[in-house]
Amino acid sequence: MAARARKRKGARKLGAWLIGARGSVATCAAYGLAGLREGLIEPTGLVTAREPFAGLDLVAWDEIALGGHEVCARRLTQSAGELVRQRVLPADLVTGAAPHAAAYEERVRSGLLDAADVGVGDLDPEAARRGSLPPREALEALSADLAEFQRELELDDVVVVNLASTEAQRAVNGDGADLRSLETALDAGRSQPASVLYAYAALSSGMPFVNFTPSPGASWPALRELAREKSVPHCGNDGKTGETLVKTALAPMFLARHLRVLAWQGYNLLGNRDGEVLADPLHKESKLKSKGDVLRSLLADPDLKAHVGIDYVPSLADWKTAWDFVHFEGFLGARMSLQFTWQGSDSALAAPLVIDLLRLTELAHRRGEVGEMPHTASFFKAPLAGGTHDFHAQYRALLDYAASSAGS
Amino acid sequence: MAARARKRKGARKLGAWLIGARGSVATCAAYGLAGLREGLIEPTGLVTAREPFAGLDLVAWDEIALGGHEVCARRLTQSAGELVRQRVLPADLVTGAAPHAAAYEERVRSGLLDAADVGVGDLDPEAARRGSLPPREALEALSADLAEFQRELELDDVVVVNLASTEAQRAVNGDGADLRSLETALDAGRSQPASVLYAYAALSSGMPFVNFTPSPGASWPALRELAREKSVPHCGNDGKTGETLVKTALAPMFLARHLRVLAWQGYNLLGNRDGEVLADPLHKESKLKSKGDVLRSLLADPDLKAHVGIDYVPSLADWKTAWDFVHFEGFLGARMSLQFTWQGSDSALAAPLVIDLLRLTELAHRRGEVGEMPHTASFFKAPLAGGTHDFHAQYRALLDYAASSAGS
Amino acid sequence: MAARARKRKGARKLGAWLIGARGSVATCAAYGLAGLREGLIEPTGLVTAREPFAGLDLVAWDEIALGGHEVCARRLTQSAGELVRQRVLPADLVTGAAPHAAAYEERVRSGLLDAADVGVGDLDPEAARRGSLPPREALEALSADLAEFQRELELDDVVVVNLASTEAQRAVNGDGADLRSLETALDAGRSQPASVLYAYAALSSGMPFVNFTPSPGASWPALRELAREKSVPHCGNDGKTGETLVKTALAPMFLARHLRVLAWQGYNLLGNRDGEVLADPLHKESKLKSKGDVLRSLLADPDLKAHVGIDYVPSLADWKTAWDFVHFEGFLGARMSLQFTWQGSDSALAAPLVIDLLRLTELAHRRGEVGEMPHTASFFKAPLAGGTHDFHAQYRALLDYAASSAGS
Amino acid sequence: MAARARKRKGARKLGAWLIGARGSVATCAAYGLAGLREGLIEPTGLVTAREPFAGLDLVAWDEIALGGHEVCARRLTQSAGELVRQRVLPADLVTGAAPHAAAYEERVRSGLLDAADVGVGDLDPEAARRGSLPPREALEALSADLAEFQRELELDDVVVVNLASTEAQRAVNGDGADLRSLETALDAGRSQPASVLYAYAALSSGMPFVNFTPSPGASWPALRELAREKSVPHCGNDGKTGETLVKTALAPMFLARHLRVLAWQGYNLLGNRDGEVLADPLHKESKLKSKGDVLRSLLADPDLKAHVGIDYVPSLADWKTAWDFVHFEGFLGARMSLQFTWQGSDSALAAPLVIDLLRLTELAHRRGEVGEMPHTASFFKAPLAGGTHDFHAQYRALLDYAASSAGS
Repeated sequence: MAARARKRKGARKLGAWLIGARGSVATCAAYGLAGLREGLIEPTGLVTAREPFAGLDLVAWDEIALGGHEVCARRLTQSAGELVRQRVLPADLVTGAAPHAAAYEERVRSGLLDAADVGVGDLDPEAARRGSLPPREALEALSADLAEFQRELELDDVVVVNLASTEAQRAVNGDGADLRSLETALDAGRSQPASVLYAYAALSSGMPFVNFTPSPGASWPALRELAREKSVPHCGNDGKTGETLVKTALAPMFLARHLRVLAWQGYNLLGNRDGEVLADPLHKESKLKSKGDVLRSLLADPDLKAHVGIDYVPSLADWKTAWDFVHFEGFLGARMSLQFTWQGSDSALAAPLVIDLLRLTELAHRRGEVGEMPHTASFFKAPLAGGTHDFHAQYRALLDYAASSAGS
Repeated sequence: MAARARKRKGARKLGAWLIGARGSVATCAAYGLAGLREGLIEPTGLVTAREPFAGLDLVAWDEIALGGHEVCARRLTQSAGELVRQRVLPADLVTGAAPHAAAYEERVRSGLLDAADVGVGDLDPEAARRGSLPPREALEALSADLAEFQRELELDDVVVVNLASTEAQRAVNGDGADLRSLETALDAGRSQPASVLYAYAALSSGMPFVNFTPSPGASWPALRELAREKSVPHCGNDGKTGETLVKTALAPMFLARHLRVLAWQGYNLLGNRDGEVLADPLHKESKLKSKGDVLRSLLADPDLKAHVGIDYVPSLADWKTAWDFVHFEGFLGARMSLQFTWQGSDSALAAPLVIDLLRLTELAHRRGEVGEMPHTASFFKAPLAGGTHDFHAQYRALLDYAASSAGS
Repeated sequence: MAARARKRKGARKLGAWLIGARGSVATCAAYGLAGLREGLIEPTGLVTAREPFAGLDLVAWDEIALGGHEVCARRLTQSAGELVRQRVLPADLVTGAAPHAAAYEERVRSGLLDAADVGVGDLDPEAARRGSLPPREALEALSADLAEFQRELELDDVVVVNLASTEAQRAVNGDGADLRSLETALDAGRSQPASVLYAYAALSSGMPFVNFTPSPGASWPALRELAREKSVPHCGNDGKTGETLVKTALAPMFLARHLRVLAWQGYNLLGNRDGEVLADPLHKESKLKSKGDVLRSLLADPDLKAHVGIDYVPSLADWKTAWDFVHFEGFLGARMSLQFTWQGSDSALAAPLVIDLLRLTELAHRRGEVGEMPHTASFFKAPLAGGTHDFHAQYRALLDYAASSAGS
Repeated sequence: MAARARKRKGARKLGAWLIGARGSVATCAAYGLAGLREGLIEPTGLVTAREPFAGLDLVAWDEIALGGHEVCARRLTQSAGELVRQRVLPADLVTGAAPHAAAYEERVRSGLLDAADVGVGDLDPEAARRGSLPPREALEALSADLAEFQRELELDDVVVVNLASTEAQRAVNGDGADLRSLETALDAGRSQPASVLYAYAALSSGMPFVNFTPSPGASWPALRELAREKSVPHCGNDGKTGETLVKTALAPMFLARHLRVLAWQGYNLLGNRDGEVLADPLHKESKLKSKGDVLRSLLADPDLKAHVGIDYVPSLADWKTAWDFVHFEGFLGARMSLQFTWQGSDSALAAPLVIDLLRLTELAHRRGEVGEMPHTASFFKAPLAGGTHDFHAQYRALLDYAASSAGS
């Protein structure tokens, strides 16, 4: 399959711009991509490496160049070292991919610290400075970085992917209601979430945007309008990597069998920076919102007792552990239960999806598709489009897309 | 929904002939049906009580009359009492449904003890006698019971459902290869599995047959030929009620995400008569066969390390408990796991599916459908037709069938 | 064993006064005691029905008469009916024990609503009135009920057991620091927690007090002083019935093997009135406090990451479900885990311990023991005395007590 | 603590002779010991590194020299490499301990292949040859190796530890009934289990023997007699490292609370060589025997439904996973359950216990103790002495031993 994916239909050069460039997910994506390119690892976990997607005209591993924004000062090799100690990244891959990693590191620029960020870790002072700029000036800086990346590497296209830590939930205001309101707010210098500014910078530069986080990104109506205006595809929000994936694969079974779910209690134990940030109540709120609505919608029961908890357990590091307890009623009023425990590396689960989305988004842009990319719903906890949380229905939509796009 | 299902499109009378008539599943089906008829319980767990199936022209609860074959001597009220003590049947339903239960009891006849049966419990001597008859004589007795049932109750149709305990695995011989071979074997007086004789009696009487057990029933080519010859629909094998249901809902997720399953270990703890019978190695073999192939087929990996264990734990009674451990590999070679524990009442899970299958089979017969009913694959561990073990794909086929049959 | 326990060493009559008289635990204790008396049930779950305790001179089942205080208006038969529907109380026990239940019901009096009580359910107006009385008047009413109970039934002793719902956590003040301060506060009419008033009423009447809840009860220094002054034994707090029991049985193993616990996350799903009350944050705080300290103390690690969560899941009713995840490090830095799921009936677990404590407390009083009864530490989450949370060490202390008390 | 353990009370030199010298447990013990010596790792998991044992006059890390017997040809560095890949041994420890490992490797000799061994892996031909020798000749070879080890390194004492793979269960004969019978059998050239010959070689050389496996070792009466005759201490059988440890820590809780265990089903998933060997039914039988009796004895219920299963799941490698389901009955006949999942590195759990036993056995020999060392019962699934399987009682016996031995 890997071989097939590499087959050229004409040389292309895609730039992948990762926001949160030295975070765990970006680090795994970068080393993983290098490993795929050098044949050091299998494409396990990559949806687009399987048929029928391997038959699409997607960019090959070696057609992707990496760059990105980051707000912390630590080096990529430090992140990689931590992931080796956490037994996520294999030590020999880190060695084998060192030249690619160095090239990536050179193309990482200071990001934009969100005004409400808890500022964990060794902050890059330039990112803090950029975060305090009036939004129009911040946008200018971001756009300049993107333009420089494209120009210097002579890239055919650039896809911007948000992998930054979850932002604090903000009070809703009218700034995002439509593009005109947002422009006015920007002109007036009103502070906006960093993810929104990243999305604005990308879309206004004509570059597709992928929001892999629960932060707003391009989900506000104003940004969606901008994407349509610029004829750019974009997708999000919040990568569906673990417990929610299992949930949305299982819940349709209860519905199909007419079993009445009485309660669905989910508990997530996170140990990485994501968990640390989410230990802050405001940040947790953003995350829980995108996780909580899923079941009520899937089970068509707005009053469902559906709890989602997130706790920070530092010793787990990248190894997320989740326990779900489903209490349900069957025939004759019999009360039964299903419980599951999911134990997985958060970054190793997320990274291949990031690569999948890069490839699918580039293809969509090349094919002239515009807007929310409903065929990518299976990748997200809170898809911008697609109309269902049912994983199997979402995946079927992706298969249908592949069938209709093959050979084109 | 129940109200909708009861709406008459013309009075009909369906006979449901349950083999294993006083077993736990049949007892729950009988009391449950009476409870639905009297409005004492909700139709939770009944697939056909949900839309879009509630819109099909299916028989109503009060259009179904029950009868059946049984090899044990205990009374239906004894079975019901046990299920009350096991906290499966509600005590007030047993009281409220007593008249219906008594009517059913009157129409239960001595069944046919399989030659290899382990003979648990208080055997009905007449069933033992029938079991030792030459097959042609046994068939005559069975057919006479079916004919009497239809005649006396003036039934429009009779559907025969096999709910008997799993039979011992037999050495394969050529008797079932085609109808002619089977006829010859019967003429020669060669012993056949009881489930095969039941299926033969039903089909040769022009009555549809549902095999809810892993015993051969109508799955041999010879029987399938007989069904086509008699223009009768039939379906099976082995109701998908618990652990296998969850398995077939979850496994497609691993495939869709290109996660490599390294091992899938399943352990089933059973406490009812099913568990007792399956404690016998030969009987267990039949069951494991139909459970074991599912994952290798679903995950498209013929070498998958997929273990299924069954242990008899009498104290659990009807409350089956299963633990599955899935070991899988993701991106970067990271090894992860998913485990689940399923705790449910075996009979309360099976009984509504029996009622669903009665209704769907009657409809198929009335609509002139012949053969293996591929649209019922989602109900079975080893479907006779349908082409996949993927629960969601199977269920979609049922939805498609409903769409194409609505209004007809 | 039951027979042994009934052997008379001289007729005695113990009054057991249950606060929360028609709650689930009290209801199970009352019906259970009647069932033991009538030989309808086995003494499973009763510690004192096993050797070597069966050899102590404890009161027999038929030597115990019941009465109590209650703040809700519902009848005992209503509570019992609910517990039958929840499949905790067997229906035939409720029938068989009806006369004993009726006698108990007659001796239930209006209790004292705690000033901060959330007031769930159908409140008894007299209990609300009593709750608003100046504390000295409330104490008078409580004491009069206790005296009447002893006088009318000619009881040799009365043991008061607090089984009421957990009270809201109050800000600490100096009222409980010593007896003189408490007397002053009572004289001044300052409101006190209901559990403290119940304890005061009991102890000042010379009656032993058992606090089966996390509410303060007799745990304040002032009350302990009163008990010593009146030469009365008492014990508490908070019955150790489920998750904490397992925790304190398992944690010593990690310590003994020098395995380093990195995190111990416990999640409790409660569906009964206890869960409903604990859904209120202030009430939950009381409970979590007594649960949370246990592990840090047991594992001798004051910085241990030990989380205890409680969530209200109404559909579970009395069937508490808890999941604990223990992350630990072994030799070579290897990170491992143990997880357990506990599923049990809260009331069926608590009720026999209540009976055990009644018997042990009466014996202690008869033997002239005074104060906190350290030998009962194994029964409590936050024992008033005993010096360790290690269940096995606590139980050994109980065995030692039995050995030293036998024959006396 | 490590510092304390190293404190000299007089220089000593202990030889530790490991049978199965390059297996996973021995490899972890060897690298771990070197790591402790060099201060590269913490003594986590070592019972004797905690108080009060750290106060005993035990040999220090750097007073232990290693040698051993092995039947496979692979090198120690190969075993270590595998354990690094399996994420059990840290890569930097392997580098840091390389000189110690090389010294150990030089002192590994060809072992004795058990006649019934399944012969997995790359067999050392000399071990096969030795295995086919008449027993007296084999014993001579083994004893010569032990003597050479002691002589060349000028060791004060040598403790022999059996860490070899579980042997196949053999039919019981009278050879082991007493020492005279065994001597006769050896003279007659009758084949004996390899573990028995190893034990005979050690004991007859006056060297203590530790049997960490379920193989017979020194458990036959004949060998116990030999140990007494030679005034040597010895202990065994079968290290209690995981599921059985948890079982024996939990089961006493059920007994103490008079909760009736209805069934205890345990399932072990093993992926290492141990699992591979145990996939062979005859070998599994030995293991299950020592695991199965534990619960019936602990719960004082000879008829207990207690199942122990072992399945080989190669992908788990050293990471053993076990699921236990405990079904139990409480007051009022309420049926409840506890289930636990244990996930740990088999070798990282076993290796520190091996080091503990080396130290305790050397101390016992130095102190003139003879025979089965009942104070070591907590380390074994089937202790040769100690009288109980209750982990807490066993551990208390070890504490008592420490108290009585301190300062001596």
